[in-house]
Amino acid sequence: MNPKELREKIAKGEFTRNTAGECPGYVQTNMVALPREYAKAFERFAAQNNKAIPVLEVIDAGYHSKILAPNANILNEIPRYTILRDGKVVEEVLDMTPYYSDDLVFFLIGCSFSFENALIQNGMPLRYVDEKKNVAMYRTNIKLKEVDGFSGEMVVSMRPIKKEKVADACVVTSHFPRMHGSPIQVGYPEMIGVCDVMKPDYGDSVEIKEDEIPLFWPCGVTPQNVIAKMKLPFAITHSPGHMFVTDKLDSEYYE
Amino acid sequence: MNPKELREKIAKGEFTRNTAGECPGYVQTNMVALPREYAKAFERFAAQNNKAIPVLEVIDAGYHSKILAPNANILNEIPRYTILRDGKVVEEVLDMTPYYSDDLVFFLIGCSFSFENALIQNGMPLRYVDEKKNVAMYRTNIKLKEVDGFSGEMVVSMRPIKKEKVADACVVTSHFPRMHGSPIQVGYPEMIGVCDVMKPDYGDSVEIKEDEIPLFWPCGVTPQNVIAKMKLPFAITHSPGHMFVTDKLDSEYYE
Repeated sequence: MNPKELREKIAKGEFTRNTAGECPGYVQTNMVALPREYAKAFERFAAQNNKAIPVLEVIDAGYHSKILAPNANILNEIPRYTILRDGKVVEEVLDMTPYYSDDLVFFLIGCSFSFENALIQNGMPLRYVDEKKNVAMYRTNIKLKEVDGFSGEMVVSMRPIKKEKVADACVVTSHFPRMHGSPIQVGYPEMIGVCDVMKPDYGDSVEIKEDEIPLFWPCGVTPQNVIAKMKLPFAITHSPGHMFVTDKLDSEYYE
Repeated sequence: MNPKELREKIAKGEFTRNTAGECPGYVQTNMVALPREYAKAFERFAAQNNKAIPVLEVIDAGYHSKILAPNANILNEIPRYTILRDGKVVEEVLDMTPYYSDDLVFFLIGCSFSFENALIQNGMPLRYVDEKKNVAMYRTNIKLKEVDGFSGEMVVSMRPIKKEKVADACVVTSHFPRMHGSPIQVGYPEMIGVCDVMKPDYGDSVEIKEDEIPLFWPCGVTPQNVIAKMKLPFAITHSPGHMFVTDKLDSEYYE
C-alpha cells in the first residue's frame, strides 16, 4: 500500500490501527489542532522546542494538506483522533469532521516513525514493528522552554538497540533533525524521570533483551502533555502512534 | 603556539610530550613508515580498513609533507618515534633521520585528537586533556579485513563521556569520518575484548566517573599492532599519542 491508498482506507474506517511500520520510507507526522487564539503562541513555543515539536506544515485555512500530502483531508485521513477539553481526554474518534470549525488551525509535526526505515536499512531491526505493536512512549522530567504561556515536559519514544549498534543509531537518526534527530537519552531512563521502562505512558511495552539498551527520542506526543498540563479549553490531536502518513519520502528530509 | 611553531620546537627537541590538547582545532595524524616492498599492500589494507586506518597523505618520494603541512620534515617534526624490527619495539627516538633511506614510504593517518576540539566546543570536556595526560588506548578483538598478507586486530582510544551526552558525542564525531568518525563501541568494553578499562595497553589510564560511560573510537595505533603481529622486518611509527600536528584545520575535514 502506498500512503494515498492507506489514507483512503483510513478515510473509509477500514484501517484504525497504529501506523508503526506502515508505508516504509515515507514521512509520518503528529497532528495538533488548536483554536486560532492559541495558534500563534503554540507555533512560537514549538519553534523554541524544535527537537520535540518540529512543525513541518501549518494548515490555517481549510483542512487539506498542501505540502506533505496535497489534498489529503486532515479531518478523516488519520486513523484515530483524541478530543481534549480542559486538558482532559474526553473521547477518541475515527473522524474529527463533527468537531471541525474554521476557527481551528492544524499543525503537522515530525515523527520518529519516519526514520524507522533508515534504522532497519542500517541493520537495526525494530521489535515493535516486527511484533506489529505501537512504540513505547513515556512522560519525562525534561523541561521545555516556556513561550507565551505554553510550558511543560517532553514525551519520549523508546527503542531497544543492540549494544554494539548504539553509536550507529545515534548517527543514522541525527540525519533526520526534523523527525527529532538523534536520541535525547541513551541507556539511563531514570535520568529523565522514567521509573519503569516496562510501563510506558502511551503505546505498548516492548521487551529489552540482555544485549540491548534503551534509546530515547523526543516524541510528537509532547504537545498533548503540554495541553493537558495547561488545561487548554479545547484541542484535537492524533492518538499516540496513529499518525498522518504523508506522500513525502524520508530522503527528502535527510540532512 | 600554532602548529608550525610547535613543530619547530619539536625539531629542536624542545617538545617531547604527547600532543593531546595541543593546537586545538588543527588536524593531528598518526605516522607509519614502511619499506617500499610493503607499501602498496599496506595502502590497500588501509583502504579496506578505513575506519581504523584512514590514510590522509602518502609521502613516497623524500620526507617532506606536501598536503597536510607543506615542507614539514617528517623525520624530526614528530615528538617521538618508535622503531620496530621483526615486529618488536627496539627503540624510541626523538629524531628518525639516522634511520632514513629512500626505500621508506611514509603514511599519515587520521587521528581522533583532531575531533577533541569539536567535542570540547560541544560541551564535552575531556579529562585526559585537562589533566595533560595521553589518551587511553587498548588492543581489542575486533578483526580487521585481511588484504595481501596484512591482518590483525583494531586498537581503540577511549573517552569517558557524561551519560546524557553520549548521543551528542556519537553525532559530533561522525562528522569527521577521516578521523575515525563515530565510536566503534559505546559503554561495553568487554564486548570488544577490553578486560580492564583502567589498564590501557598504550597511553595513560583515566578516571571514569559514576555519571559517565566509556566510548571507544578506532585508533591510528592499529598499524603498530598489525606490524607487531606480522613481525615485519622493519618499520617506524610515531609513538602512541605523539602525533604529527598539521597545518590543516579540523573544519576542512568536517563532512
